[in-house]
Amino acid sequence: MRTFDIIKRKRDGLELGKEEIDFIISGAVSGTIPDYQITAFLMAVYFKGMSAREVRDLTFAIRDSGVHPDFSKVEGLRVDKHSTGGVGDKTSLVVCPIVASLGLKVAKMSGRGLGHTGGTIDKLLSIPGFNVDLNEEDFIEIVNRTGIAIVGQSKGLAPADKVLYALRDVTATIDSLPLIVSSIMGKKLCADDDVIVLDVKCGSGAFMKNIEQAEELATAMVQIGQSAGKKVRALITNMEVPLGQTIGNALEVKEAIDTLKGNGPRDFEEICLVLASHILELAGKGSYESCYDMAKESISSGKALDKFREMIVAQGGKAEVIDNFNLFPQAQYCYEVRADKSGYVEKIDSEAYGLASLTLGAGRNVQEDEIDYSAGIVIHKKSGDKIEQNDVIASLYTSNESALSRAESIVKNATIIGEKQINQPLVLKVIG
Amino acid sequence: MRTFDIIKRKRDGLELGKEEIDFIISGAVSGTIPDYQITAFLMAVYFKGMSAREVRDLTFAIRDSGVHPDFSKVEGLRVDKHSTGGVGDKTSLVVCPIVASLGLKVAKMSGRGLGHTGGTIDKLLSIPGFNVDLNEEDFIEIVNRTGIAIVGQSKGLAPADKVLYALRDVTATIDSLPLIVSSIMGKKLCADDDVIVLDVKCGSGAFMKNIEQAEELATAMVQIGQSAGKKVRALITNMEVPLGQTIGNALEVKEAIDTLKGNGPRDFEEICLVLASHILELAGKGSYESCYDMAKESISSGKALDKFREMIVAQGGKAEVIDNFNLFPQAQYCYEVRADKSGYVEKIDSEAYGLASLTLGAGRNVQEDEIDYSAGIVIHKKSGDKIEQNDVIASLYTSNESALSRAESIVKNATIIGEKQINQPLVLKVIG
Repeated sequence: MRTFDIIKRKRDGLELGKEEIDFIISGAVSGTIPDYQITAFLMAVYFKGMSAREVRDLTFAIRDSGVHPDFSKVEGLRVDKHSTGGVGDKTSLVVCPIVASLGLKVAKMSGRGLGHTGGTIDKLLSIPGFNVDLNEEDFIEIVNRTGIAIVGQSKGLAPADKVLYALRDVTATIDSLPLIVSSIMGKKLCADDDVIVLDVKCGSGAFMKNIEQAEELATAMVQIGQSAGKKVRALITNMEVPLGQTIGNALEVKEAIDTLKGNGPRDFEEICLVLASHILELAGKGSYESCYDMAKESISSGKALDKFREMIVAQGGKAEVIDNFNLFPQAQYCYEVRADKSGYVEKIDSEAYGLASLTLGAGRNVQEDEIDYSAGIVIHKKSGDKIEQNDVIASLYTSNESALSRAESIVKNATIIGEKQINQPLVLKVIG
Repeated sequence: MRTFDIIKRKRDGLELGKEEIDFIISGAVSGTIPDYQITAFLMAVYFKGMSAREVRDLTFAIRDSGVHPDFSKVEGLRVDKHSTGGVGDKTSLVVCPIVASLGLKVAKMSGRGLGHTGGTIDKLLSIPGFNVDLNEEDFIEIVNRTGIAIVGQSKGLAPADKVLYALRDVTATIDSLPLIVSSIMGKKLCADDDVIVLDVKCGSGAFMKNIEQAEELATAMVQIGQSAGKKVRALITNMEVPLGQTIGNALEVKEAIDTLKGNGPRDFEEICLVLASHILELAGKGSYESCYDMAKESISSGKALDKFREMIVAQGGKAEVIDNFNLFPQAQYCYEVRADKSGYVEKIDSEAYGLASLTLGAGRNVQEDEIDYSAGIVIHKKSGDKIEQNDVIASLYTSNESALSRAESIVKNATIIGEKQINQPLVLKVIG
């Protein structure tokens, strides 16, 4: 088998066999196929796409390219959620404790974020002492004992994805459906969960800008998960506006804690309950409606918050943060962005808010960048809200004073104030 | 400027600016842009093409990427021909002496071949002692004194083309029109000739398989040459059958010498006269018809052969080969392929004949391969020829006995004997 022939066949729009896909992936990981052939292959995939069968084979090849913990040692039904990534998305921090408090097992391996804000792992690292680098034995033990643990992805997990992603990132081949699907599901299937609920974000703050793209992605991911024998469902959710009222690591953890206390923003609490209910339903806990009630009760009773506390303690973090937000890293500067005129917030550009948050220090431009856990944005006015001139639109947090004026101007431009009151649904579609 | 953005813009089908193209080319040569970005860029060009303006800028960037002799020191009108490469194409060995014998200057830099047979340089190297590595001073001096010298391309000539070609060769991006055009013309324009006649081969033995492709390529090359201020014309010539009766380095030189002696195969002599006449006409030597007569006379008078002899002597070769073919490298084995039935040769698959010749040792699979100068094929029956059962179709020459049976079966399968007598024109179209 020759790499050249595989590139040429894909270039000519032919369907590759499983052996050809396996050959490319193992060659990419071992280095026997040079990067310059891999990137030509990726660009050919960008233009010619892949059949459902090819995407499945690529996904499984990525999944099987490395090593991961032996999850058969976890007792009970293993569940997970995965979000395609949106601005201010801290749902895992609420959904996972809810379902764990209701008897399901969450053994979550999560990636570090690149872009506007950190990933789930970065958010958790804003809790002083929290350890995301557990060894396999401790990881499994904590999950069996408490029902939940969230760790960083180990270096050995799906190494093919790391190789491909790094090359895609510098060759304009990120936004290719087969490559996105196989990257997400190749890693996700490593955890070998019984139930997976996918949160596919759609809108200006997300990767998928319109519902057709989002639906195509969601359908492909559900099919692949099902072909691997998993119970999978995808929700297409609205990312026209940032989720909740915070963007930035410590700010988002505080908002998640508020939500677990029953004091979260209405839209954010609702999306968490919906995601948790779908997981519970797929796990056989009853009808969707009864699962929704159970999820709601886990918050009102404090059980979900207790589970979150238990997780922090088990992973070495300072659980006192839950009762005293002053124990989180604090930003040196807080700056209020005010409205120039009165009216209704007609539109918020999530992506721009994400960029402002990155500017303030909350995210990474490159993998090596240090994150300022305290940095970010608290949003006071969202789409549909009435606003008076000089009202505070958002508060900016940072320890880098020089970033404030740029972030302010981004936020102002990204907040469209007009005369119409527009409200948007949270969940656009359920697939699977 | 970021490589990523340039790749993305090309991927999205946008027209790149001159600065962007220069950035890619200088980055490819200096190594500041990694190969894996260059190949993704090339694959994007493969799919999205380039405008005439982009191809011109790319060509000039390749031309200007290195250093070459100072041809302003050559006195008189400098002319050249270039062939896109066909099976058994030894026209340069006849055309260049003809036009040089008529007062034009030929300072030719030629590449080594990859594939079925060697390039012009490899053919000349089958003449014992012939030196293709002249320094600039000697090169210019010989051209000024004798009117003709043919040397190998120096390492410093258009290095961008070497980088791009090596990457295209392993990533299935060879057959992209803008990349072919810029590669050929980028190198060709280094010689800064006043007149260029392009011989674009069309048919099964050539890169361009049909007349539409060939015409597109020819038109693009003529336009670029003209935009560089040159007199350029392209002939689209038939490569459905190999040119002349020989394939293989020493065999082809012998055939060229026979042709210069006036004893060459009719089809081959004719194409040489036509190419020479177009060069002479563009160089202002008179009408096409009078140029054709001059070219013919240069053969019948022996002037062209004298010029060829003069070139061999000036470049250190053993000119006695002209009168004694036994001084060429001789193959150990000669094997005759015979016809299984009677009829007319309806079709010869040039590409397959080329492959057979490669198998016998006449060409290179990879740049490092050694060529057997004596190896190749003498074709006794071509399209349109009457043939009787057991007639000799072709003679195979090699020093590798084990290659004979494979080459024989290729040649047999590539020679279609039927009942129709089909004759094909030599020149299909003239452009420019």
